[in-house]
Amino acid sequence: MSHNTFGHLFRVTTWGESHGPALGCVVDGCPPGIRFTLAEIQAWLDKRKPGQSRFVTQRREDDLVKVLSGVMLDDDGETMITTGTPVSMLIENTDQRSKDYGEIARRYRPGHADYAYDVKYGIRDYRGGGRSSARETAARVAAGGLARKVVPGLTVRAALVQIGKHRIDRNNWDWGTVNDNPFFAPDPAIVPVWEEYLDSIRKAGSSVGAVVEVVAEGVPAGIGAPIYGKLDQDIASLLMSINAVKGVEIGEGFGAAELTGEDNADEMRMGNDGNPIFLSNHAGGILGGISTGQPVVARFAIKPTSSILTERRSIDADGNNVDVRTKGRHDPCVGIRAVPIGEAMVACAIADHYLRDRGQTGRLK
Amino acid sequence: MSHNTFGHLFRVTTWGESHGPALGCVVDGCPPGIRFTLAEIQAWLDKRKPGQSRFVTQRREDDLVKVLSGVMLDDDGETMITTGTPVSMLIENTDQRSKDYGEIARRYRPGHADYAYDVKYGIRDYRGGGRSSARETAARVAAGGLARKVVPGLTVRAALVQIGKHRIDRNNWDWGTVNDNPFFAPDPAIVPVWEEYLDSIRKAGSSVGAVVEVVAEGVPAGIGAPIYGKLDQDIASLLMSINAVKGVEIGEGFGAAELTGEDNADEMRMGNDGNPIFLSNHAGGILGGISTGQPVVARFAIKPTSSILTERRSIDADGNNVDVRTKGRHDPCVGIRAVPIGEAMVACAIADHYLRDRGQTGRLK
Amino acid sequence: MSHNTFGHLFRVTTWGESHGPALGCVVDGCPPGIRFTLAEIQAWLDKRKPGQSRFVTQRREDDLVKVLSGVMLDDDGETMITTGTPVSMLIENTDQRSKDYGEIARRYRPGHADYAYDVKYGIRDYRGGGRSSARETAARVAAGGLARKVVPGLTVRAALVQIGKHRIDRNNWDWGTVNDNPFFAPDPAIVPVWEEYLDSIRKAGSSVGAVVEVVAEGVPAGIGAPIYGKLDQDIASLLMSINAVKGVEIGEGFGAAELTGEDNADEMRMGNDGNPIFLSNHAGGILGGISTGQPVVARFAIKPTSSILTERRSIDADGNNVDVRTKGRHDPCVGIRAVPIGEAMVACAIADHYLRDRGQTGRLK
Amino acid sequence: MSHNTFGHLFRVTTWGESHGPALGCVVDGCPPGIRFTLAEIQAWLDKRKPGQSRFVTQRREDDLVKVLSGVMLDDDGETMITTGTPVSMLIENTDQRSKDYGEIARRYRPGHADYAYDVKYGIRDYRGGGRSSARETAARVAAGGLARKVVPGLTVRAALVQIGKHRIDRNNWDWGTVNDNPFFAPDPAIVPVWEEYLDSIRKAGSSVGAVVEVVAEGVPAGIGAPIYGKLDQDIASLLMSINAVKGVEIGEGFGAAELTGEDNADEMRMGNDGNPIFLSNHAGGILGGISTGQPVVARFAIKPTSSILTERRSIDADGNNVDVRTKGRHDPCVGIRAVPIGEAMVACAIADHYLRDRGQTGRLK
Repeated sequence: MSHNTFGHLFRVTTWGESHGPALGCVVDGCPPGIRFTLAEIQAWLDKRKPGQSRFVTQRREDDLVKVLSGVMLDDDGETMITTGTPVSMLIENTDQRSKDYGEIARRYRPGHADYAYDVKYGIRDYRGGGRSSARETAARVAAGGLARKVVPGLTVRAALVQIGKHRIDRNNWDWGTVNDNPFFAPDPAIVPVWEEYLDSIRKAGSSVGAVVEVVAEGVPAGIGAPIYGKLDQDIASLLMSINAVKGVEIGEGFGAAELTGEDNADEMRMGNDGNPIFLSNHAGGILGGISTGQPVVARFAIKPTSSILTERRSIDADGNNVDVRTKGRHDPCVGIRAVPIGEAMVACAIADHYLRDRGQTGRLK
Repeated sequence: MSHNTFGHLFRVTTWGESHGPALGCVVDGCPPGIRFTLAEIQAWLDKRKPGQSRFVTQRREDDLVKVLSGVMLDDDGETMITTGTPVSMLIENTDQRSKDYGEIARRYRPGHADYAYDVKYGIRDYRGGGRSSARETAARVAAGGLARKVVPGLTVRAALVQIGKHRIDRNNWDWGTVNDNPFFAPDPAIVPVWEEYLDSIRKAGSSVGAVVEVVAEGVPAGIGAPIYGKLDQDIASLLMSINAVKGVEIGEGFGAAELTGEDNADEMRMGNDGNPIFLSNHAGGILGGISTGQPVVARFAIKPTSSILTERRSIDADGNNVDVRTKGRHDPCVGIRAVPIGEAMVACAIADHYLRDRGQTGRLK
Repeated sequence: MSHNTFGHLFRVTTWGESHGPALGCVVDGCPPGIRFTLAEIQAWLDKRKPGQSRFVTQRREDDLVKVLSGVMLDDDGETMITTGTPVSMLIENTDQRSKDYGEIARRYRPGHADYAYDVKYGIRDYRGGGRSSARETAARVAAGGLARKVVPGLTVRAALVQIGKHRIDRNNWDWGTVNDNPFFAPDPAIVPVWEEYLDSIRKAGSSVGAVVEVVAEGVPAGIGAPIYGKLDQDIASLLMSINAVKGVEIGEGFGAAELTGEDNADEMRMGNDGNPIFLSNHAGGILGGISTGQPVVARFAIKPTSSILTERRSIDADGNNVDVRTKGRHDPCVGIRAVPIGEAMVACAIADHYLRDRGQTGRLK
Repeated sequence: MSHNTFGHLFRVTTWGESHGPALGCVVDGCPPGIRFTLAEIQAWLDKRKPGQSRFVTQRREDDLVKVLSGVMLDDDGETMITTGTPVSMLIENTDQRSKDYGEIARRYRPGHADYAYDVKYGIRDYRGGGRSSARETAARVAAGGLARKVVPGLTVRAALVQIGKHRIDRNNWDWGTVNDNPFFAPDPAIVPVWEEYLDSIRKAGSSVGAVVEVVAEGVPAGIGAPIYGKLDQDIASLLMSINAVKGVEIGEGFGAAELTGEDNADEMRMGNDGNPIFLSNHAGGILGGISTGQPVVARFAIKPTSSILTERRSIDADGNNVDVRTKGRHDPCVGIRAVPIGEAMVACAIADHYLRDRGQTGRLK
């Protein structure tokens, strides 16, 4: 299982299972001189943390992040300054109930990767999903916290825009409300609808899919690269690497299939300040793989978790037909907790391309 | 502009602009002992070739591919056998009308990458789009021809499933008809609809988007890798690297957002032959980033080309407001010619992951 | 400071400074089903550990390694079995005397990387050499412990063959004596010579260079690759990456410059068992970048550490001329402790190329 | 045989065999705006070209290089300006005498990679050595020609310093004489000695090894990276990738093993111009993997070619003992033609690290 690393100059390697002593990441390529506090990184992890509402898994993890290398403390004893060496971050696993998983050690949960892992590796850490547990994404979020610091002026935010068939009204979009509800919904009017719907899903021991939209502002024009190093390609790759993601869009996405060239191409005019203005953003901020300076807009679809209480038909490792019910403390809608993960992935992709342009040390303007 | 290479063990590097003497690719990592004829590779290029119907660009290119290295001729004087060394393939550019492009040398065509290139590189080969010309994809298709040979029993096919708002009826799906119409439509009933619609688009000098679906059969179970080496991630990355692609889906794709866990997870049973059977394929043949042995299903959305006859507002390299009309011989629906390109990208991703599992030489079963 | 990773399928990322809380490595790509005990890994770390004789630094570090991920315990509660996921190993730093280094925070020690780091990064962790401390090599040795397990039948051993001008007598070579003396000398007769010489160096607060030879037996024929993936190239790269290494040789090395084609080429004959026999091993087990089945032989030269008690001329970060004496607990001959590090690097290179041939999972013989 | 690419941001892929229609390289990552003429690149190829004296192979190749992509012509019709897209260069093979090689198709030439290739790939292009032919290095030299242009003020020169046991006198070193003799000798006094010695080798149908020294001046301080991205590591890797190279040294190299810390560390003082001065250059311009601004000095040893007229014992592909004499037009001392190749490799390593620091486009000073 090689390939737990992503990025070309801002390179992130994650490691760890949900039921080992810890998990973490090594961020290699963070330029020197980046200043941050542990609290800033922790804030992103807290956003992803389970158990924050009845709509996500009740598993309890403090998810406290430690920084083991790559920084020196500033005189205030709190601000960390990167030295350019690898930043190793570690999160201990504290709430492991292996007994919950004993009975599925040899049973393949439908919709999970159990069967695929066994075919590939012949061995599988069945405890809590092992490496394919959503806990791996805690390490991504920690890395994303650093990535946000690499590009001056960068803001990466995400919101949930669809649960099941219930979509937000885009005319209501208000970033100010995203953190005021348990769904990261940008439309306050959808909140009661989703509450009622997800309560019914949760009580039925079922689950449902969702769509997340990520918007990055302050992306300098000119990062990315044509052909096989496209910024949108790397964003698509990283979003698709998140567990349960089945689709990715940039800008208009699949909607572009229905448009004509007149409707889709973003016209330009010179602004009063001498800078170009785009009159629309169908492209989602990227043309030919390169950023245009407009906000970068990406969306991704998350399937419903296959950990549900209804019995489903499957087989076991010995080739017997079995019926599987997945007990444990799972998410009725994993899409909710995917919001900060999507932000982290987009931030990492942008940081990587920023450094490809500016160079490894970032010192040479 | 680094990063014109993709793949980890089956590595493809493409090079060339639409208006230079030639373009091509180097396929590095093709295992030894693969047998193919030039005619087999040429057949895929012919499928992508312009000028085959009134619905695609009337640019005339023979797109004859030459193999310059990496093979020895078998005694029949026709069959090439790979030796394991890099296979360099070259396609000469024969129909270059640079004069068509002169006036846009300093004008940024809306929706094209002109502005982004200039911001990034400060220089831009404006002739025919330079590196971001769709001609680059000829090299991908040649590489895909080899990739198809790497995995025994692999079949990769694609079809156009949507043009504008007009979608095929999936109940009519018939692979047998795909090559019988100029659209690669798998539903004969849609053909007259698309013809009429695209004629109107073409006559208006306009363009429209489309959706392509790729299906790979014969993918062995157990290829791919978790986390950042997922098979679906690499497929998404390569499909998103195709010019004009704005969205990618695996299996249910964005539709998964609307499903419950009961509806989405594919149940399993043991088959009579002792092999597992999946009772559905919502996953699109991939779970946890690893193939399950089911057909791999991917879709991608292509935006309408921005080369249209209608005047659009833009700016030039000197910061003046200008109005741009893109003359030249362009595609009313670039999605049509994207069909063989999508096939090639999926074949390359699968070949790469196959070799990651089987090893570089492919000799060690 | 990107690029703390090496290897293509067996990928090792190291992190950590000598004066942070810990250092470690992530081994990504270790195939599933590899069995090992913590004691086996610890044994290699103990071999590298400081303070084991008066000829190496008196710094005290227990260098106890922990395995944080990528394994499941076998029923014996001791044997670890890799699952194919990243193996994260961590070593805590216990003996940090930062005060020793305070005065060199802004002074550039001649022969050290202090000046180069400051030019590149504008910030430098001066405590104990920061990232360029020899402590980083503990993580390499841990990774090497796993690498040795990847290739069935592989043995990698090294010995010190030269200190200063004093070379071993190759006719005396006896692997059995290597661990019986504090120098890893394969020639017992050299031991008293080196003892006396190094005592004089040590008492003078000086240091001296050395040469290490690594021999890998049981390397299957046919691993490696031509051109830019040569096995000897990767061995040279990894040996040169060890702190203080200034030269690398394969087989005859620089001696080959003095030989004729008749003397240098290794002749072959068929053996009685039907396998080819090489009649000599000038090539060091590698031809055209590919292993021949003979022992792989590599040597590397280590410069004397620049941490010496004699005052040397230098400058400080403010541009003043200063005289620098490096206090602290350093190695009179860092070459001694380089012996297990060299072994680890060669083992990692071989494991990586082995997997390139056999594939990621190593399951497909 | 994956891995025909080197470099991280300045990436070179070579392809081609000595007996196919052509060979070449793709240089991906050359920044935009680099200006060069074909004649400048050709000059380096001419330096490597065979047949220029009786001391090298009499094979006749014009080695005319063509540039197929990645450039636009300046108004002078001669100067090429890179656009940032991949530069594809092609060299046709014109003098192929396959008949010379027929009889060794199934015989393993001792000291050549024939046996290793057959073990690995099960198929081998026996004509002229196939991929492992020294002709592959023509592509390296072409790439090196571009690399030299990437770093402003960079000069990379090499000289032959040893043939057999005959070494130059370093006190005589005069760069001005290097191109005045057929050996690239920097010491005119050695020329008649080498002439006489190599004539005897040549007449005997024998061959002999050599040592080349490369010196790069104008390397900015601060390029390279610690640990696994060391500049010296990448130089060692690329020099070791040249056919027949068996050893690599940086600065003092193996000589450092004999020195004390006092003798080896380069002292520093502030210069009158306010810039640091190193009082010696034992380090060869690199400390901790990072350039110091001093000249970068590397040496490499080339073994004698195994293509000699004396019969040597070997086996064939059928397992028979055979005696092999290698006819053909070979080099009595391949080290001579390695001089421009070594230059090219060092130039490429420096260009790559320069771009890692400055970024992909090189536009952002």
